[in-house]
Amino acid sequence: MTGVIEKAKEARKAALKLANVPVETRNSALHRIAAEIRERSDEILRANSEDMRRAEELLRRGRISRAAMQRLKLDETKINDIIRMVESVAGLEDPIGRTLYAVELDRGLELYKISCPIGVIGAVFEARPDVLPQLSSLCLKSANAVMLKGGREAANTNRALFNAIRGASEGAGIPEGWIQLLEERREVREMLELDEYIDLLVPRGSREFVRYIQQNTRIPVLGHAEGICHIYVDEDADLQMAVRICLDAKVQYPAVCNAVEKLLVHRKIAGEFLPLIAEAYRKAGVEMRGCERTREIIKDAKRATERDWRTEYLDLIIAIRVVDSLQQAIDHINTYGSKHTDGIVTKNMKNALAFLRGVDSSSVMVNASTRFSDGYRYGLGAEVGISTGKIHARGPVGLEGLTTTKYYLIGNGHVVGEYVGPGAKPFSHRRLERKWKELESSLGG
Amino acid sequence: MTGVIEKAKEARKAALKLANVPVETRNSALHRIAAEIRERSDEILRANSEDMRRAEELLRRGRISRAAMQRLKLDETKINDIIRMVESVAGLEDPIGRTLYAVELDRGLELYKISCPIGVIGAVFEARPDVLPQLSSLCLKSANAVMLKGGREAANTNRALFNAIRGASEGAGIPEGWIQLLEERREVREMLELDEYIDLLVPRGSREFVRYIQQNTRIPVLGHAEGICHIYVDEDADLQMAVRICLDAKVQYPAVCNAVEKLLVHRKIAGEFLPLIAEAYRKAGVEMRGCERTREIIKDAKRATERDWRTEYLDLIIAIRVVDSLQQAIDHINTYGSKHTDGIVTKNMKNALAFLRGVDSSSVMVNASTRFSDGYRYGLGAEVGISTGKIHARGPVGLEGLTTTKYYLIGNGHVVGEYVGPGAKPFSHRRLERKWKELESSLGG
Repeated sequence: MTGVIEKAKEARKAALKLANVPVETRNSALHRIAAEIRERSDEILRANSEDMRRAEELLRRGRISRAAMQRLKLDETKINDIIRMVESVAGLEDPIGRTLYAVELDRGLELYKISCPIGVIGAVFEARPDVLPQLSSLCLKSANAVMLKGGREAANTNRALFNAIRGASEGAGIPEGWIQLLEERREVREMLELDEYIDLLVPRGSREFVRYIQQNTRIPVLGHAEGICHIYVDEDADLQMAVRICLDAKVQYPAVCNAVEKLLVHRKIAGEFLPLIAEAYRKAGVEMRGCERTREIIKDAKRATERDWRTEYLDLIIAIRVVDSLQQAIDHINTYGSKHTDGIVTKNMKNALAFLRGVDSSSVMVNASTRFSDGYRYGLGAEVGISTGKIHARGPVGLEGLTTTKYYLIGNGHVVGEYVGPGAKPFSHRRLERKWKELESSLGG
Repeated sequence: MTGVIEKAKEARKAALKLANVPVETRNSALHRIAAEIRERSDEILRANSEDMRRAEELLRRGRISRAAMQRLKLDETKINDIIRMVESVAGLEDPIGRTLYAVELDRGLELYKISCPIGVIGAVFEARPDVLPQLSSLCLKSANAVMLKGGREAANTNRALFNAIRGASEGAGIPEGWIQLLEERREVREMLELDEYIDLLVPRGSREFVRYIQQNTRIPVLGHAEGICHIYVDEDADLQMAVRICLDAKVQYPAVCNAVEKLLVHRKIAGEFLPLIAEAYRKAGVEMRGCERTREIIKDAKRATERDWRTEYLDLIIAIRVVDSLQQAIDHINTYGSKHTDGIVTKNMKNALAFLRGVDSSSVMVNASTRFSDGYRYGLGAEVGISTGKIHARGPVGLEGLTTTKYYLIGNGHVVGEYVGPGAKPFSHRRLERKWKELESSLGG
């Protein structure tokens, strides 16, 4: 059996070749993958049934939850969703070879900054089997090699999907070895050590899972462990709008990272607003936990403790705090939040601007639900992940997050000696209209 | 004495405020800093004399090199260079508040992706005292707080420069605590642990120093440990041009990271080219080390060992290898190089393109000296560093490398519930021409 390092070396070797595979080949490989998954769907569903059979046993022994089992299950509808997803990635614009900066340094000396693949992406995920085709497709589209490590519960499903994807893509001209599957639990730990071979990790799973990855590797991690999202209802809020937004942000899909977890309410409108939102939350079955001032108004709210402000519930629970000012709301968010998504409801645009500027989060909303914070809704075409880190990519991240850049300098015998010291030639630094792809094709590329 | 964590907390607090200080204030603070350094130049030079006096003692005891002492020394010319540098940073375009993406999600629901400061930058450097004002100015321009840790040899000079910068900037309205100085050696180690407070490290110094930083922190590092740069002289090269470029890249300034360290020469032209370059290198006092085939042609070349291919000399030494093909040259560079800067000399544009695509380095040159790889020459205005990493920023990095992004979503009561399920409203995802700054000022910002 091939070890993790050998697989990583193969991936790196393949990555150097894949970086130069034209987009037409990458796209047709994606179509081939979609077709292959369709053709092999019976096989994939059989593999999934095998996993489900084992999962039922684990469920009986209390080793996994019913929710985890639900996430594990594939059916024809989910297979069709996967096929559509792969096709849609094929339809996205090529993220590679874009000209990000083009400047003439001097006559005949032209500099181009080009987007290019990062190299080898490590994709680690828990039991949802649709993550494997999704991250593989995004990596292939962006010409990156990928090392995949999924949850053990989905081992058969993952292997069936992996075989379909590898077979179809390598058959369509994608360099052998570009996709690697790790199956042993101990291999995760080994993978996290391979900062020499793996350029970026994209983890998908529970907050404990992502935090474990973040804390046990020197490889950069694109992602977020949790979303402790806030909505601040300002003294100048339209209260009906605030109810609408706070309700949507909490109940429309409470189990996700961009659902609101905390409400901050200005004291001047607390007496009027809190009864309104409390009624709406009661009807929706939301458990309320409040600070003292909140509980004076919402009598059935439980007491919120210090721990509540730091907790992501992912459930129909909300913590509510009455604040004295906009600044106190901002300070609360910057202290207790997770820098994911936070919003203000206000008619006062000065307050909205102060909130946008003051809150140090990857997405800040004015008069809109935090639930909009998402790659598809943001129009990014695909979502690689939502990053709460500030380096490389932040917020909902599209394919761009799987690219880096490279400078090309094209001269005609130019040497630096002529541009230094007495009589030095000046640089023109004239912006070029020409894109690299135009020059490339004029050079016969 | 304030501990490192307390300083980091102060810096983080100041960073949140500094993020919203307008560019006019930041620029006028930079001008005040330049004026203050001019006013206090006697004081700074006296502090530097004190450091020099101690350094002479260290030199006598063999504890530092003469070169290190030279780098430590400040004089009026160098002070004037520093003042000019600070003024030029004031003159650069504001990197903050730029609109990187603007899209309407639906009527009245507008998304803006804005450049913003990262937060707290850790600047660690060895004995060159001009690094302190340079990195401080770049951080201030980009609205980041900065924690500075310089070499102990320059302690007095650094403190004098720090006091001038802090006094002038805080007097000009920059939030107190935005700039912090660490003076104890043990504080470096502590600083490297503070990934909760410091967002990015920018190290400046020897390769051993940078490597130490990279290997002892979880904080992302922007920089490079070394530049093992190659020039490949293709079979279709203009040999006179190749001599010019190989000479410039080696001798014009050999002590820097973008100087060439290895020549790869196609075997078909080795017999003609190697005597030409050998003559030029001999005249310039360059020591040549070659592979067996090189030494058959250049008789006075020393034998290059495996170690030579992996060594950055930073000196008038070059290692030369005859290769059988373009692909062998590319493979050699991807195996032994440092992903910094590598070049090809050729008249054959197909070969040039294959080289550009195949070499996995941050800058790739065609018919130009590797020495051009530099932020100023690339027209970036200022250079924060040259990054050989692929995440966040790669190659020569301008002020952009000290920024991240933030999404602003401005709605009018929009909720996600209307955009999902049966009867879901569609997203328009229409690109907006409007920049955030225009909307901001129309909102009264």
